[in-house]
Amino acid sequence: MLPVDIDDIRRAAEGLSGAVQHTPTVPAPRLSAQLGCRLSLKLECLQHTGSFKDRGARTKLASLPDEARRRGVVAASAGNHAQGVAFHANRLRIPATIVMPRFTPFTKVARTEAFGAKVVLHGDSLSESQAHAAALATDKGLTSIHPYDDPLIIAGQGTAGLELLEALPDLDDLVVPIGGGGLISGLAIAAKAHNPAIRVTGVEAARYPSMHDALAGIQRSYAGSTIAEGIAVKEPGKLTREIIAALVDDILVVEEDTLEAAVYQLLTCANVLGEGAGAAGLAGIMAHRERFAGRNVATVVCGGNIDPRLLSSVLLRGLMRDGRLARLSVQIEDAPGMLGRVAAIIGDCGGNIVDVHHHRLVYGVPAKRTDLEIVVETRDRSHISVIVERLAAAGFGVSTA
Amino acid sequence: MLPVDIDDIRRAAEGLSGAVQHTPTVPAPRLSAQLGCRLSLKLECLQHTGSFKDRGARTKLASLPDEARRRGVVAASAGNHAQGVAFHANRLRIPATIVMPRFTPFTKVARTEAFGAKVVLHGDSLSESQAHAAALATDKGLTSIHPYDDPLIIAGQGTAGLELLEALPDLDDLVVPIGGGGLISGLAIAAKAHNPAIRVTGVEAARYPSMHDALAGIQRSYAGSTIAEGIAVKEPGKLTREIIAALVDDILVVEEDTLEAAVYQLLTCANVLGEGAGAAGLAGIMAHRERFAGRNVATVVCGGNIDPRLLSSVLLRGLMRDGRLARLSVQIEDAPGMLGRVAAIIGDCGGNIVDVHHHRLVYGVPAKRTDLEIVVETRDRSHISVIVERLAAAGFGVSTA
Repeated sequence: MLPVDIDDIRRAAEGLSGAVQHTPTVPAPRLSAQLGCRLSLKLECLQHTGSFKDRGARTKLASLPDEARRRGVVAASAGNHAQGVAFHANRLRIPATIVMPRFTPFTKVARTEAFGAKVVLHGDSLSESQAHAAALATDKGLTSIHPYDDPLIIAGQGTAGLELLEALPDLDDLVVPIGGGGLISGLAIAAKAHNPAIRVTGVEAARYPSMHDALAGIQRSYAGSTIAEGIAVKEPGKLTREIIAALVDDILVVEEDTLEAAVYQLLTCANVLGEGAGAAGLAGIMAHRERFAGRNVATVVCGGNIDPRLLSSVLLRGLMRDGRLARLSVQIEDAPGMLGRVAAIIGDCGGNIVDVHHHRLVYGVPAKRTDLEIVVETRDRSHISVIVERLAAAGFGVSTA
Repeated sequence: MLPVDIDDIRRAAEGLSGAVQHTPTVPAPRLSAQLGCRLSLKLECLQHTGSFKDRGARTKLASLPDEARRRGVVAASAGNHAQGVAFHANRLRIPATIVMPRFTPFTKVARTEAFGAKVVLHGDSLSESQAHAAALATDKGLTSIHPYDDPLIIAGQGTAGLELLEALPDLDDLVVPIGGGGLISGLAIAAKAHNPAIRVTGVEAARYPSMHDALAGIQRSYAGSTIAEGIAVKEPGKLTREIIAALVDDILVVEEDTLEAAVYQLLTCANVLGEGAGAAGLAGIMAHRERFAGRNVATVVCGGNIDPRLLSSVLLRGLMRDGRLARLSVQIEDAPGMLGRVAAIIGDCGGNIVDVHHHRLVYGVPAKRTDLEIVVETRDRSHISVIVERLAAAGFGVSTA
């Protein structure tokens, strides 16, 4: 007997009706053509607080007896769980305290406060914040809301699966990001109850494959930054581990560059904003096309809360990767008219110059020469090659960087 | 009698069933809180080709008799109309030729070709492309597909209104971007048939208020670039003008900076990607809050096809506007240790330095001094002031730019 079953999810769905968004499931024709499968996206990024966390938080909060509601709740999170708890506690008039690490970005604090929660900054890491939240729960009689290892949280997240399967009854493959494992646990229960032949695949970031490792019996520590911070979880849940071991077919582990490319592809080819963790399912499919070829595949874009500055970098780096933006390094004589000649050649080739820097302090460049760094908007990689060849034919030393 | 009525739209909706996306209508709680109204968004940016143009194009193409289908269709467009026609002509196995101006960005050409259309680059402006498309239609017997001034196109776009009103039967205000006027014509017919008390407001970009001017009897020419290129139309339609004059309550005209801010707010506060024209409805509401205060308001995010490089700039400029990114100009002695002192002060204040440049060729700066340009991530405008004051107190000349 698993700790959550399909009836728990159905009950959660009744309770959530009208309280959270029934998010759309949309086909992604351009991504499907690129990947060779029929891909659909469940857009939990359009949930009230921008992630699926609303579902579990609301289910758990609504289950609390009056006395517990009066005393209030506490959660430790710097991310989407904080916002889900804050937003729904506020709607249910339950006082909420959210403990965040001290160096949490200001916008995350401000957004959580705007949803009506009291934010306490404590500790240098999430585990220190969690310890403080546990202490607050004991000292003040607050109910602690765990982000994933709670049957009601798991049942709540599973409601996204009921909606997805209603939209796509003939699904072959369900691909779900794994952080603590709450979302995939709920979805796997819903999917296998609908049709045991649906293959459920989890996706973790290569720097934090904690659930993959736990199931494989590997013990190690995890560190480093990842664009998929929402699934950068060091210790998987106990309940979720049990459910995943029983129901999830495979766990794929994807590298940072694939996660970043998936955020870019999702935004530019499907007009959908996913954060790193939200695009992890797509990243898993991109990295394992053969596994999904020709099949009816769905993934959950589980969150869309990405920092605008990070997204801005992802966009420019994506253009570089696609060959639509190139950084050329051109050696010129430090003399009048040289930039004009270089710029004219690039313009004749149809390249659009968007930035120019002169570097005179470059080792290996003669003193009377200068290194010209030019950022050019190009059509594709072959267009870059044409420009490089034309510059070289005109006698300029040129390289791409 | 108007050229299109509600029965035309209902018939178009029957024809479109399963052929275009029934796009979601979602509440926007954070934008609602900011704007003081209950705002919902109809997400036509999630349509197959990323804009509402699918609806009219499909309706028109599906209406063609066999002989016309066999000969094929032609359209002049560098934007969303091109993609809508290309995608649905391909699905209906109708040969499509799209005429675009010669300097159309390569990605738009490539995307239209990827949808199966033949792209002809002709002319330096859209009107020259249109003339060439008309010539092709005559010479080769192709059916010309107008982007808005056609009853079937208008009826097709109106189907978005039926879906929106089904989702929001108690709507008070419908706010719709106006380019040629096809979308707002169809939506106004649907809205007024549902409830004549629904107020329908159009929004145009300040550089191209051609429909506003036509109705006001103003004659002038329009020019200049706008982030809302999808609604930068110089000559409004005849049919659409007649419908708008009869059914649209007001047309608001919004400035470039508001359009840009609306793209940013839509993405960062609702996780929805809108192009400039797609965010124009939100821009109209942002610029006229009092008009919509306390009301049930919906706008159509009519398209989401924005260039990634432009979007990247919009994000960084949005952070600047919000005081979350600041460019400081600091005058320092050109001597060892100075950058360290400046950086330490900024770090102590909690500012995160993301870019540094030295400018030594600045008029007004003594030769032994240098101008240090520092880009800092900050919490808000008051945080910037704190950093500037601390630098000034330490003896540095400092200004924000």
